[in-house]
Amino acid sequence: MVNQNLYELGTKPSAIRELFEYGKKKAAEIGAENVYDFSIGNPSIPAPECVKEAIIDAVSNMDSISLHGYTSAQGDAATRGAIAEYLNQTYQTNFHADNFYMTCGAAASLCIVFHALTTPEQDEFITIAPFFPEYRVFVENAGAKLVVVSADIPDFQINFAALEAALTPKTKGVIVNSPNNPSGSIYGEETVKKLAALLEKKSAEYGHAIYLIADEPYREIAYDGVEVPYLTKYYKNTLVTYSYSKSLSLPGERIGYVLVPDEAEESREIYAAVCGSGRSLGYVCAPSLFQKVLVKCMGQTGDISEYQKNRDLLYGNLTKMGYECVRPQGAFYLFVKALEPDAAAFCEKAKEKNLLLVAADGFGCPGYVRISYCVDGEMIRRSLPAFEALAAEYK
Amino acid sequence: MVNQNLYELGTKPSAIRELFEYGKKKAAEIGAENVYDFSIGNPSIPAPECVKEAIIDAVSNMDSISLHGYTSAQGDAATRGAIAEYLNQTYQTNFHADNFYMTCGAAASLCIVFHALTTPEQDEFITIAPFFPEYRVFVENAGAKLVVVSADIPDFQINFAALEAALTPKTKGVIVNSPNNPSGSIYGEETVKKLAALLEKKSAEYGHAIYLIADEPYREIAYDGVEVPYLTKYYKNTLVTYSYSKSLSLPGERIGYVLVPDEAEESREIYAAVCGSGRSLGYVCAPSLFQKVLVKCMGQTGDISEYQKNRDLLYGNLTKMGYECVRPQGAFYLFVKALEPDAAAFCEKAKEKNLLLVAADGFGCPGYVRISYCVDGEMIRRSLPAFEALAAEYK
Repeated sequence: MVNQNLYELGTKPSAIRELFEYGKKKAAEIGAENVYDFSIGNPSIPAPECVKEAIIDAVSNMDSISLHGYTSAQGDAATRGAIAEYLNQTYQTNFHADNFYMTCGAAASLCIVFHALTTPEQDEFITIAPFFPEYRVFVENAGAKLVVVSADIPDFQINFAALEAALTPKTKGVIVNSPNNPSGSIYGEETVKKLAALLEKKSAEYGHAIYLIADEPYREIAYDGVEVPYLTKYYKNTLVTYSYSKSLSLPGERIGYVLVPDEAEESREIYAAVCGSGRSLGYVCAPSLFQKVLVKCMGQTGDISEYQKNRDLLYGNLTKMGYECVRPQGAFYLFVKALEPDAAAFCEKAKEKNLLLVAADGFGCPGYVRISYCVDGEMIRRSLPAFEALAAEYK
Repeated sequence: MVNQNLYELGTKPSAIRELFEYGKKKAAEIGAENVYDFSIGNPSIPAPECVKEAIIDAVSNMDSISLHGYTSAQGDAATRGAIAEYLNQTYQTNFHADNFYMTCGAAASLCIVFHALTTPEQDEFITIAPFFPEYRVFVENAGAKLVVVSADIPDFQINFAALEAALTPKTKGVIVNSPNNPSGSIYGEETVKKLAALLEKKSAEYGHAIYLIADEPYREIAYDGVEVPYLTKYYKNTLVTYSYSKSLSLPGERIGYVLVPDEAEESREIYAAVCGSGRSLGYVCAPSLFQKVLVKCMGQTGDISEYQKNRDLLYGNLTKMGYECVRPQGAFYLFVKALEPDAAAFCEKAKEKNLLLVAADGFGCPGYVRISYCVDGEMIRRSLPAFEALAAEYK
């Protein structure tokens, strides 16, 4: 009687969520201090103070109807204008308010874009492993096909030969996520230029634009001064999906946007389809209070240095113990090669030592595990003997 | 290159929004006090004080990570439990936290339910005119067909002969909206009992459940002590879609829920499909701060008596002038018979007098106009001579 696909999606156990629930149960048994839960990508640093101040200011000084009423479907013009201005100042771009459609967060942004671009012609979207597993759910729900290009191991940049082989006349878009969940890698300028050149060549060959979908919730989580190139400047047919979940530590508040630059081919048609897509999915008007809060928090972030400390602590110690991994340049994940070919079996062994790690099979990268280090630094310190003991088992 | 249906949906002018924009332009020309904009259903009374207090309390006393972090996909257990308890006390029901899936508002609730219930078997959903026009967008986007049963004029209860004729083995659900947008009518207990009996009879005849989808954003906006029967008590296969937009005057904040009662057939399968539907549409985790706020505002509303005063003022005066309409029992709309058969032409004449009314053709009820009285009472007073002059034109 119900939709079978959605029923299965709703009952299929999420490995990450199961692990998280297991962790809570185990913590109740043996004490929270003895469980090392690295499963979840929930920001562990508080929102910057401007968020609290902006909320209190808004509820104290704005009238309730302006504050909590419907904004226009695409979002407050003031909010969209402030975002345009911030990006223009930061990245020397030329956006304006009407390039932006405010959304209820990253998942909404992605769903809206995939639906807007998907025609009945069996469109394909390519993503590059390792990748956020929900891409598959969103792309397939929009009626398109997700094509996965294998990872470029051990650097986690782009395997261009594999990407070129995967491009076909059916390719509607390529999804990139830099800084990357789960590898922590960032596509540098060289990678981005090569990517743009390839997509331009193939667009010309096929006679239609291949859109680059830049999924950028981790844009501001970058370390050591590494720059994250702004992709619209390198490839005109770039659409950006953004969320403030990570930069402002507001994952629960569901606020983000879709950016459709003027320079994209059929820019106004895409923007209209984005509006229609939002409407048909029930997404008009992103949360109003947080639209107002954003205006007061442009360019701010939580204290990212906390993540960097965690990265240094974990990366430094794990590599000393003999674990293989690339040094993450951004996001808050360490992507580690499992000490046996079967990452799930490796995670089971880790679990016996109360280390909760996520096997990366679901991210399209078997043989690896994801360690989320958006956690209390003290927990990392307490966990080190367990990592040591785990490594010892394989010696 | 883009999805053609969504492009058209994104560019198709919304009559209501166009009127609203016209009103703003006209106000700039001739002064806001001379334009009588009755087009939009945006609550005009402030949120109750508990909303502001709960927001300030939460940001002052909760840690940022608990407050703004992801809740579970279906929403905070505490929030869902508080809603269950409130409904149980108020309506003598037996709900528990796991009957509820928190959403980003009414549109999201509806989209999630339609997708969850729709199979590839050409399912049909019936609604009863006059109806909220977005039902069609949401039902069709889910892959089902919307069947409209004509209005029961002039009472705006249910035309049971027409409803029975519309029911077929393909009917997956019947959507009702009481208190009703745009008629302001409420289905009394007698109507509800007849509806339940008909759906039970037809479910038995077809050998499968016909779900009743109770879309209830206006539940608390009822006047003169009129009771709004709680439909799950009359028909076990009722699913409720709810939003706090109207009751708490928070339309911009996008917070509501789907209720799947235990007594519904395949209750757990539907709930799982609702979870899968939310996930596939990118709707997991409703806005977190407002989930916390709700817990502190159970059973509260803005000052509904303001709407009642507006209703009395407008209904009393318009009927005296000779306009025909049913006295609204709830919601904040007056549904008036146009003074000529073509409601759009009537609205154009009204516009010449700076009265902005919405022709109800899009609501499936030609020949009527919707007057939203969620406005400043002073504007209603100022508008009365224009209504008088409009009526005079037809004498």
